[in-house]
Order: sequence, then structure tokens, then C-alpha cells
Amino acid sequence: MTKDKYRQQFPALANKAYFNYGGQGPLPDRALEAIYAAYKRVQLGGPFSGEIGAWVAQEAMLTRRAIANELAVPPETIALTEDVTVGCNIALWGIDWHPGDHLLLSDCEHPGIIASVMELQRRFNIEVSVCPLAATLNEGDAVAVIADGLQPNTRLLVISHILWNTGQVLPLAEIVKVCHEGYEPPLTPPCQGGGQEEFPLISSGGQEELLATKKKVRVLVDAAQSVGVLPLNLIESGVDFYAFTGHKWWCGPEGLGGLYVSADALADLQPVFIGWRGIVTDASAKVLGWKAGSQRYEIATSAYPLYAGLRSAIALQHEWGPIEERYAEICRLSKYLWEHLSELSHVECLRTSAPEAGLVSFRVTNGMPHKKLVDLLEKQGIMVRTILNPDCVRACVHYFTTEAEIDKLVGEIAIQLV
Amino acid sequence: MTKDKYRQQFPALANKAYFNYGGQGPLPDRALEAIYAAYKRVQLGGPFSGEIGAWVAQEAMLTRRAIANELAVPPETIALTEDVTVGCNIALWGIDWHPGDHLLLSDCEHPGIIASVMELQRRFNIEVSVCPLAATLNEGDAVAVIADGLQPNTRLLVISHILWNTGQVLPLAEIVKVCHEGYEPPLTPPCQGGGQEEFPLISSGGQEELLATKKKVRVLVDAAQSVGVLPLNLIESGVDFYAFTGHKWWCGPEGLGGLYVSADALADLQPVFIGWRGIVTDASAKVLGWKAGSQRYEIATSAYPLYAGLRSAIALQHEWGPIEERYAEICRLSKYLWEHLSELSHVECLRTSAPEAGLVSFRVTNGMPHKKLVDLLEKQGIMVRTILNPDCVRACVHYFTTEAEIDKLVGEIAIQLV
Repeated sequence: MTKDKYRQQFPALANKAYFNYGGQGPLPDRALEAIYAAYKRVQLGGPFSGEIGAWVAQEAMLTRRAIANELAVPPETIALTEDVTVGCNIALWGIDWHPGDHLLLSDCEHPGIIASVMELQRRFNIEVSVCPLAATLNEGDAVAVIADGLQPNTRLLVISHILWNTGQVLPLAEIVKVCHEGYEPPLTPPCQGGGQEEFPLISSGGQEELLATKKKVRVLVDAAQSVGVLPLNLIESGVDFYAFTGHKWWCGPEGLGGLYVSADALADLQPVFIGWRGIVTDASAKVLGWKAGSQRYEIATSAYPLYAGLRSAIALQHEWGPIEERYAEICRLSKYLWEHLSELSHVECLRTSAPEAGLVSFRVTNGMPHKKLVDLLEKQGIMVRTILNPDCVRACVHYFTTEAEIDKLVGEIAIQLV
Repeated sequence: MTKDKYRQQFPALANKAYFNYGGQGPLPDRALEAIYAAYKRVQLGGPFSGEIGAWVAQEAMLTRRAIANELAVPPETIALTEDVTVGCNIALWGIDWHPGDHLLLSDCEHPGIIASVMELQRRFNIEVSVCPLAATLNEGDAVAVIADGLQPNTRLLVISHILWNTGQVLPLAEIVKVCHEGYEPPLTPPCQGGGQEEFPLISSGGQEELLATKKKVRVLVDAAQSVGVLPLNLIESGVDFYAFTGHKWWCGPEGLGGLYVSADALADLQPVFIGWRGIVTDASAKVLGWKAGSQRYEIATSAYPLYAGLRSAIALQHEWGPIEERYAEICRLSKYLWEHLSELSHVECLRTSAPEAGLVSFRVTNGMPHKKLVDLLEKQGIMVRTILNPDCVRACVHYFTTEAEIDKLVGEIAIQLV
């Protein structure tokens, strides 16, 4: 199928040049029709009946399975959630925090997640610190920065797999390794020469003592920008909690996402917002305990007809090609965009080398407010967005973005900035 | 409009006799079309753009307003939630619990809510007790039972406005009064004669001392079965937290509900699951605090197209008539059902007088398992459900239920139980 033909399945792409995949992906026609058909199905057999109850359970199971397939994890590790933020909150609040515990947060997290962490700090009297990952966009070692932020009392690291503001891709497996096993510095630390000295991870106590006594540092990942973009193998990565949404790069409907909780992390993570979907009851409805897997974190009634929509959207991606090919195409196109933006006067890309994924952030250097530029572009049918921290404009490309679309965006920016 | 004509707007009613409104209401055609149109709208203008961002904010505002109108409260007291259970959890977890605080729960709450309360007890080391409201279905005073369960350290009462298992309607305003102001016993307590003695609410300390020192007992109501049924004036009732869903008696889409938090209770209730919808940020995305009203409890991306569907469903109810008329019709029809069920051999209604709302619960006395009866009825296109505690069958009537439907249900039960 040609790209033009493929794109015709997304009505949103018909009347605009679209670069907001990181905000929300366009819903394919067939996904909307699947949602509509699911509503009809529910009304035909119910809405509330034994038949529809079984159908809903099956829809949920099929959806967990489709998602799990994309993340290379068992379906029972997946909880369906309303959105990525709910997934993050399940992990944030489910840890049995004690006063003095430490949470390490990157400086590139979404304000909603930051606010939740601030409230955890207030509520449980925990210690929170922020590690400066933004500065590692073009040089430096994100893993070392994170290792440097870990403390003996650290219980959770909160990062994004792809930073939503700058588009940087973090080396997840290495980061998880540092958190789970402790940090082994490079043999020749850049600023220390010989490398024979110890490079202590923490200020008090030796490394061995630390590993023997302290709890594993869990890793929570905001995967809003990575799911549907990167080839993933979460088991291999060792990550504990991976929260995502279906409505961005997967192009599913808004209001449906999920949370992966590793088998190892499950035992430590208590459900917080609790409802009938997460519990097991006996024949007289007495509460016995939790569902076996991550389903325990699901709460109650959701917009079940969306499940078919998300599966349909994921299936459509596969019709284009395997994730490795799609990711390569995203990188090829974001490089094309980055190169052409870099050639413009009055535009400075945040990255000094080609992007590692679909997010391309840039700032305007002639004094025009970014909001003004974004609004002017929207009037021309070109959708990008502002980011407030750092102050910039973000344009996203997907594998089905066209060079013509990118040329239009770059050309219009050039006109507006003259 | 005749009832038959009115019913034609609900496709689910075309092929069955429907008595599961307390599980899920049938979605009117026009609500589904409104949802479908909203999806198209989002794709036309976005999905992610300045235009659609403004549209989503307006949709949310219109929906809070439509809901607020039904509850006779200001729109800013309403948080939109995924379902009633999420609403209950927001209130349950948002209280700043301290070890030794007491939570009083009725014995007729949904297992999901019970499980959440059990986890609160474990997590915060609070005291939980259960007050026996089920026994007040046919005799006794629910208010007195609740008053009896209050302690000096009670901080929250959790009840339903209409008990989902037995259909009993609780006197909300009186219950709230007892919780907020303390209990004034009837002048002639039934078992005490003269009524001159003090009837102490609590075991230690006098009433005045209590009121001066202890915190107000907040009241959280699971309103799953009351919203869309009872004429409501929440301000007058004084209730603190009222959690509801749009997909039962309002006949809106599944996956959309809300939580009312009174202006007084708002100040004490911290957001728990937190996201961008609930917070205020400055020009550089720094988190400044919460949104002004109950919006602070909203989390992040939802299935926004459902908003139009719920408003459409609510508007349709008004086309039938005001809530007082609809409630009267529900009571007339549930009385009709209750009377005819009561005439059957092998059937015993839980209530000894006519129902106060649309839920009619009954048990079978010839030994047939309730699950078997429900399954047999479903095969005949008649939808009722089992309740496990107490072990019974529940049939719900709405104002647009017909006598013919009820006759069919009662007739088929008679046949099955012969």
C-alpha cells in the first residue's frame, strides 16, 4: 500500500499537516467503526446481561493480550487504565512509602506527574530530588546523572522513556540496571583519569553494604512518547512499572491506556484506587483478595467499546510493517525535518544531532513568541504545539508523515519568521 | 409521546424485557450518534490542536453544568470521573487519615468499596466498623443505627443513598445532620419510656465537648442507584461527597461518572491520583497548585466524546418529564412489579411493603439457585441479575418500563418455578 493510500484511512489527516502525534494520534476510520459496532453490540445483547458481561471480560482480555504483544510481556502483567497518568499514579501511590524514603525524579517529567510526586512528598513526608537529565540532550551521560542522584534511601526513580519536551531517548535497560544492581562506573571515568579510585554511588556506606540492606530502587517509566514508537522488550529491560496510553503513537481512542507491572514488582505494589475489577470475592460477595496479575489495579466500569478501537488501531500499524521498520521510518523522517529546520534562519533545534525518535523540538530566535507561531501555523492547517519547559515548539513525525507535509511545515515557518 | 414511541429511541429495548437499569441503562440512539459525531469533530479539527483543546474544555464544562443541574449544585462542585467507584476512591483516599481514625461503613456497600476501605485500614491503620443497615429494610430506624455507630474518632461515614442490594432509600439529609451536628434522639425513645435520660451518642465525654473538639464526620455517598432516580438537592442535604455514574439510571455511556464535593468539604480533601487536569501551572509549566473547584480531582485524558453522549441522555429524560414525575412513575411501576411478584408461590420479596425506588429484590423459596433462574430468564430475553449478599434476584424498573414487560417477567418466573 502506498503511503498516500495508507493515510486515507485517517480522516484527521485529510485536511491538515499533522505534527501532534505526541499529543494525540489520528484515529483510523476502522477504529471508530469498531467502537461504534461495539456500542451496538452492547445494546443488542444487554447492555447489562450475562452475555455482555462475558463479552466485556473477553474484550478486556483480548486488549491486554494485544498490548502485551507490543511490549513483549505476558498479558497478566498489563492493567488497563484510563490514561498514562492514571498508570503513573497507580505506581506512585501503591508503594508503601515511609517518612524519609527518597524518590528521584527527572527534570523532564510532565507537570501532572510532578504534582502527584509533590503530593506524595507532603502526604508521606518523603524526600524528593530532581536529576538534571535535560542537560544531557546533546552531551553527557544520562545514566551517570541518574546514578549520581540515587541515595541509600531511594525507593523509586521516575523517568520517561522518551522525554516529552526534548525528544531524548533514555537507555532504559542501563538505567534499570543501575537502579536494581547499583552503578558500575566506566573503567576510565572522563574527569578522573586512572579509574582506580572508587566512584561511590552514595555518600554513606560501601556499595556491598548498600546492596545487602537497602530495598531495590524501582523504576517507573512514563511511556507516553515511547509506546508505538520504539521496539520494546520490557522483560529484557527489567523495568518495574511502565505506564502508557493508546491514543498517541498507537492512534487509538483517547481515554484508554495501561500499566505494565513486572511480576517481581507486583508483590510490593498495593492497589490504591480499588473497585470490583481488581478484587476476588466469594460466593457471598465477601472480599477475599486481589486478582492474580496486574488486573488488580483496574478499578471499575470503563468505556469498554474503546477496547475494540485500540486493537483495531494497533492492528493497522502492523499492516504497515514491523515496529523496527516503522521506527526506522520515524527516525528517517524526523532527521529530514530536523535538517530542514536547522537550515532556517531564526530557528534553533534543541538537538545538535538528528533526533532519536519522532519528536523534534526547536526554538525561534527572532523574538516571536512560540505560542504565536503555533497559532499562526494552526490557521494554515499545520498542527504543532508549544512546550513551556524548555520554552520551545514541538513537531512530531510518525512513520506515515510525508516529506510533502514536512516541506509545508518548514516552508510556512520560514514565511512566518521572515 | 407515548411510552412505546419513547422506548423506540433505545435500541436495547427492542429485543428484550429489560430490568437491569441498576447495572447499566440502555443507551439512546441519539446519545450514540452524539458520541459518534464528537469523534468525527475531534478528527476534523485535530485530534490535538488549539481548536480541539478549547472544544474539550467546553465539552467538560457543559457536562459538569448538565450534571450539576440534576443535583442542584454549582457546576464547580462537580469532578468528572471514569465511574462511581473512582469517585468514591477520590473521597476515601483524599482524607488525611491518621492512625486510630474511625470510618463507619454500612453493611450494604458494594464489594469494590469495601475492598478499598479494607486497604485504607491496612495502609493508614485506621479503625473500621460496619453498621447494620440491611436489617432496617422493613423495620427500624436507619438514622438511629448510624448514629449508634458513630464514635468520637469517626471521620467518615460511607453509605449508599439507595442500597444496591435491597433497594432501600436512606434518608440522606437526616443522616448527614446526625454526622455533622450529632444525634438528637426522638423525645420518646422506643425502648426507654420517659425520654428524660440522656441518649449519649458516644461512650466518652459529653455531647457539647464532643462537638467542640472533634472534627465533623464527613459523609460519602455511593449514589450509583440514586442519580437519575430520586429528585435531588445536594446542597439542602448537606452531604459532603456524592459519587455517581452516568451509565445506569441516566442511560448515558459506560465509562463516565462524577463526584460532587461540597464547598465545605473541598478544603479538607486532597487530590490523590493527580494529573494535568487538576492542577494550575505558570508560564514555565511550574506547578502552582490545584484548580479552584472539584476539577482538581480530575486526572488526565478521558474519552471526551462520551461527554456529548451523557448530556444527550440526560436531555432525553427531561423530554419525558420532570424528575418528580419520573420518580413517581418508577415507584408506581416498582409497586406493580412488587405486588405481582408477591403473589407468586415460591417467591418472597425482600421488602414487606412497596419499594421506594426502582429496585425490587426477591428470593426464590423452592430451592432453585438464583443464578439458574437468572440464566433461564436471560435465555427468554428477560434481563435481571443476581445479588450475592443477601442472596437474591434484583429486577429494576425505570419510568419507561411497561406493565407488559413486567407481566412477561412475572409470568416467566412463575413458569420457571413451577
